[in-house]
Amino acid sequence: MGWRRPPLLLWCLFLLLSSAASLSRAATRHHEWEISYQFRSPDCARKLAVTINGQTPGPTIRATQGDTVVVRVKNSLLTENVAIHWHGIRQHGSPWSDGTEGVTQCPVLPGDTFTYTFAVDRPGTYMYHAHYGMQRSAGLNGLIVVEAAAGGPDAEPFEYDGEHAVLLNDWWHASTYEQAAGLASVPMVWVGEPQSLLINGRGRFANCSAVAAAGGACNASLPECAPPVFAVVPGKTYRFRVASVTSLSALNFEIEGHQMTVVEADGHYVKPFVVKNLNIYSGETYSVLIKADQDPNRNYWLASNVVSRKPGTPTGTAVLSYYGGRSSPRRPPPTTPPTGPSWNDTMYRFRQSVATVAHQAHIQTPPPRADRTVLLLNTQNRINGAIKWALNNVSFTLPHTPYLVAMKSGLLAAFDQRPPPETYAHQGYDIYGVQKNQNATASDGLYRLQFGSVVDVVLQNANMLAPNSSETHPWHLHGHDFWVLGYGIGRFDPAVHPASYNLKDPILKNTVAVHPYGWTALRFKADNPGVWAFHCHIEAHFFMGMGIVFEEGVERVGKLPKEIMGCGMTKGH
Amino acid sequence: MGWRRPPLLLWCLFLLLSSAASLSRAATRHHEWEISYQFRSPDCARKLAVTINGQTPGPTIRATQGDTVVVRVKNSLLTENVAIHWHGIRQHGSPWSDGTEGVTQCPVLPGDTFTYTFAVDRPGTYMYHAHYGMQRSAGLNGLIVVEAAAGGPDAEPFEYDGEHAVLLNDWWHASTYEQAAGLASVPMVWVGEPQSLLINGRGRFANCSAVAAAGGACNASLPECAPPVFAVVPGKTYRFRVASVTSLSALNFEIEGHQMTVVEADGHYVKPFVVKNLNIYSGETYSVLIKADQDPNRNYWLASNVVSRKPGTPTGTAVLSYYGGRSSPRRPPPTTPPTGPSWNDTMYRFRQSVATVAHQAHIQTPPPRADRTVLLLNTQNRINGAIKWALNNVSFTLPHTPYLVAMKSGLLAAFDQRPPPETYAHQGYDIYGVQKNQNATASDGLYRLQFGSVVDVVLQNANMLAPNSSETHPWHLHGHDFWVLGYGIGRFDPAVHPASYNLKDPILKNTVAVHPYGWTALRFKADNPGVWAFHCHIEAHFFMGMGIVFEEGVERVGKLPKEIMGCGMTKGH
Repeated sequence: MGWRRPPLLLWCLFLLLSSAASLSRAATRHHEWEISYQFRSPDCARKLAVTINGQTPGPTIRATQGDTVVVRVKNSLLTENVAIHWHGIRQHGSPWSDGTEGVTQCPVLPGDTFTYTFAVDRPGTYMYHAHYGMQRSAGLNGLIVVEAAAGGPDAEPFEYDGEHAVLLNDWWHASTYEQAAGLASVPMVWVGEPQSLLINGRGRFANCSAVAAAGGACNASLPECAPPVFAVVPGKTYRFRVASVTSLSALNFEIEGHQMTVVEADGHYVKPFVVKNLNIYSGETYSVLIKADQDPNRNYWLASNVVSRKPGTPTGTAVLSYYGGRSSPRRPPPTTPPTGPSWNDTMYRFRQSVATVAHQAHIQTPPPRADRTVLLLNTQNRINGAIKWALNNVSFTLPHTPYLVAMKSGLLAAFDQRPPPETYAHQGYDIYGVQKNQNATASDGLYRLQFGSVVDVVLQNANMLAPNSSETHPWHLHGHDFWVLGYGIGRFDPAVHPASYNLKDPILKNTVAVHPYGWTALRFKADNPGVWAFHCHIEAHFFMGMGIVFEEGVERVGKLPKEIMGCGMTKGH
Repeated sequence: MGWRRPPLLLWCLFLLLSSAASLSRAATRHHEWEISYQFRSPDCARKLAVTINGQTPGPTIRATQGDTVVVRVKNSLLTENVAIHWHGIRQHGSPWSDGTEGVTQCPVLPGDTFTYTFAVDRPGTYMYHAHYGMQRSAGLNGLIVVEAAAGGPDAEPFEYDGEHAVLLNDWWHASTYEQAAGLASVPMVWVGEPQSLLINGRGRFANCSAVAAAGGACNASLPECAPPVFAVVPGKTYRFRVASVTSLSALNFEIEGHQMTVVEADGHYVKPFVVKNLNIYSGETYSVLIKADQDPNRNYWLASNVVSRKPGTPTGTAVLSYYGGRSSPRRPPPTTPPTGPSWNDTMYRFRQSVATVAHQAHIQTPPPRADRTVLLLNTQNRINGAIKWALNNVSFTLPHTPYLVAMKSGLLAAFDQRPPPETYAHQGYDIYGVQKNQNATASDGLYRLQFGSVVDVVLQNANMLAPNSSETHPWHLHGHDFWVLGYGIGRFDPAVHPASYNLKDPILKNTVAVHPYGWTALRFKADNPGVWAFHCHIEAHFFMGMGIVFEEGVERVGKLPKEIMGCGMTKGH
């Protein structure tokens, strides 16, 4: 902070030197992962989890900008396939490593090993997680931390003395199979709110003692579910990298007694702003700075609270503890944990969204206008009695032959060749009412984008099937970051609202919230050859059809590795 | 019964006519199956089950000898593959339809459809079930009933007025994933005894009301778990086809107050003998005749009880009801259900095994001697601390490239080329003691048999890792029936016991029990080109390595359908 942009010439020199330096230092980071089921007790209750090398969350991948990350994934599940997505990594030149089953690859069979290789070309906080069925919330997830190349142009425009990483999650005791089968049932059987909120894979199931008394497998004194402790040195400034991999929950994250300065979002530097607590949606990452300037002789809560849905899950907690203070790190703070803002205070969260703009020294100006605009009405619908989510009344289904392979191989029958609708009848549409036409069609058609074109997408939220209800949807785009041009509450009017877009300093993100009854406008350049999913990051919503897929420049994609093939129409390819 | 063999010439004429008749009538039976997860309540407690067209057990396949059965299986599981084995069908000329993942095919991926096509060349009672991971006990199982071609040489040598089919199973409330993960854990976590025994997919969970009171999903008044009722007309004779697809349990099946005449075992006619109740092991089928000659004004229990393991599961029950009697078919019988013989009365079960020989008019005389004898010591062992089952201290693992494909394609690296051991150091071996060398090696090597040769296998049971314990193992051979030449208790001596083999009228079976501390000798002709699994039919035991594989005449197998490929080294084939 307080860092000022140097004159242009100096910049160029700097750029040259630093890219040379970072090139010379570029490393390849190898990881060997084995995916298997293990009994874990993240919230003290024993549950079967999909683990990486026995852990959930999996190991944090640490790398430096310019490095190449190689992850050899051995699938040691008994009967299940896997695929792993590197969330926030744009996969320039490696679209087959995006890990999106049905889009960029066939799933990896039990016994098979699949190698993901990708460059981390930008510093920041990212994550990885399964992108197949509902394995993400079964436990297959973790963090990616990419350091800026030292002294390079992407060096942080802020200073700090130490850093901590915080991965937020929600957790059910029912299996993800049960959740998925319930979602697909007619009538739908909802798994219910999560039992626990996890911080770095740890939580406290509220009814543990009752379960244990009834002979169930819950043990509140397991070290495995002891609250994580984040230690700080008095007077120092810390960067907290915060990521949310929740299946369902929008969260509010607070460090009791410590203001946060938001400095990074989805790998982009933010014009710093100060909050008491941070709203974070599934698929988002932030970095916040805190100053360890409070009484060091007591501990403080880290708290994760559900917002946007009426909470049915207790606060997730961890402990902030000062080195040298008189309080044991393991001692619970003397206070009750923060409960966050009102869960239904949409405007509180809306304001944080709007406040998140690019750091003035790191503005990447968006193209002034779009070549094409896709307006997507987000609604809940019914297909054959089953509840689905739909965009412009089309509910997305994944094809069984990955698009990337199908399109490169000319397998036209692999998916619906009709493009999904670009817009909906927005004139006079009542987004606050229950949709009159609740029918939707299922389709695996995709949007083909002209390579290099500029695309606007406006996501329009609306009322769900039940009256007076509208949820927050965090939409995540693969293969790109997008500029967040604007947010609104109410119906988006293409003739009016684009005039208010922020074209000056919009933040680049890969995941963005669409608030209840609101709209969000974003812009990206279709310049990354490949096929890219764009979907609500709530796992159940994507499962129920809340997504679309973009293709751009697929003809420019090089020879596909055969490892991504072998399913659907590419069986025996 | 009482039927006498006609003179040879008449026989020949009969044969000719009947095969012409059956040929002309041969039909193709098409089935369309969709495999999916559904919530079912077989024992009144709700559980996620792998179902066929929404059902577990799946639909009964009915066909007539000489028919061709075609089953198109669509895998609609979310992330799991499947493979289905047609248990008792020898797959002459269609070894790729045996449905054994890792042996005869790659698993069928989600979204894919696989077509099994096979001839049912012999009348009898068979079953089908998943042969992948532990999906069989997750619910994917059912019956196959093949009628004899009318008037043909394989017509039943007994008469009856009507028939009923009974599929026995055991059922856990924990998922099969939990069971499998527990088995693979160090130390092993055992899922425990089954909660319920099912008859035709129905049982009564004993603690249903307690579970329901605690808010759990158990409802004892669901029609789905109402006891099955088997109706009979007074004075008539019924054939009960009884099959056991249990995951673990050896069972004893009884129809209260009605003697049973055993007439069929695994599709072969038995020299009739009368029992009060029938011992039946996982993978076995029997037909028994009962006469409806009891008081028609009350109902009678059908009872399934655990034997061979100390029972931890209540009796499974159904109801026999007389037409025209004064008792409502739904009314429980006035008695307590039969509890079967003592669970640990090994000799009671041994005697039934020995009594099961071929019907005198349907004897297929075995070859007088074997070209090769494989003696397999069945022990529990440890590998890296994990408990395994082993044969001659080799614990079987499935390769990820199916043998059938690997061997036809010359993929030598797909599995261990070293053959497993033919025998063990049996001289002086104490089968009643805990094995001194508990180490085993894991291997996916197989036994290559000379085509057309006669093979004897002697299965030698022994003590497990715990002192004074030995279980019953029902061994099942794919692709063949075998003659059961003899049973014994104690250590098999190759110099002594073969002299007592029954070469006169041994029964042909596909599954046979090896009794605690006992041995079982069997013989088969290696005349079915293909690759065939031979394993303990207890799902957990096979999972833990209790199996071997035979190859014979693989060079005679025709062109393989590419649908069975696509995994392991055949990915991209």
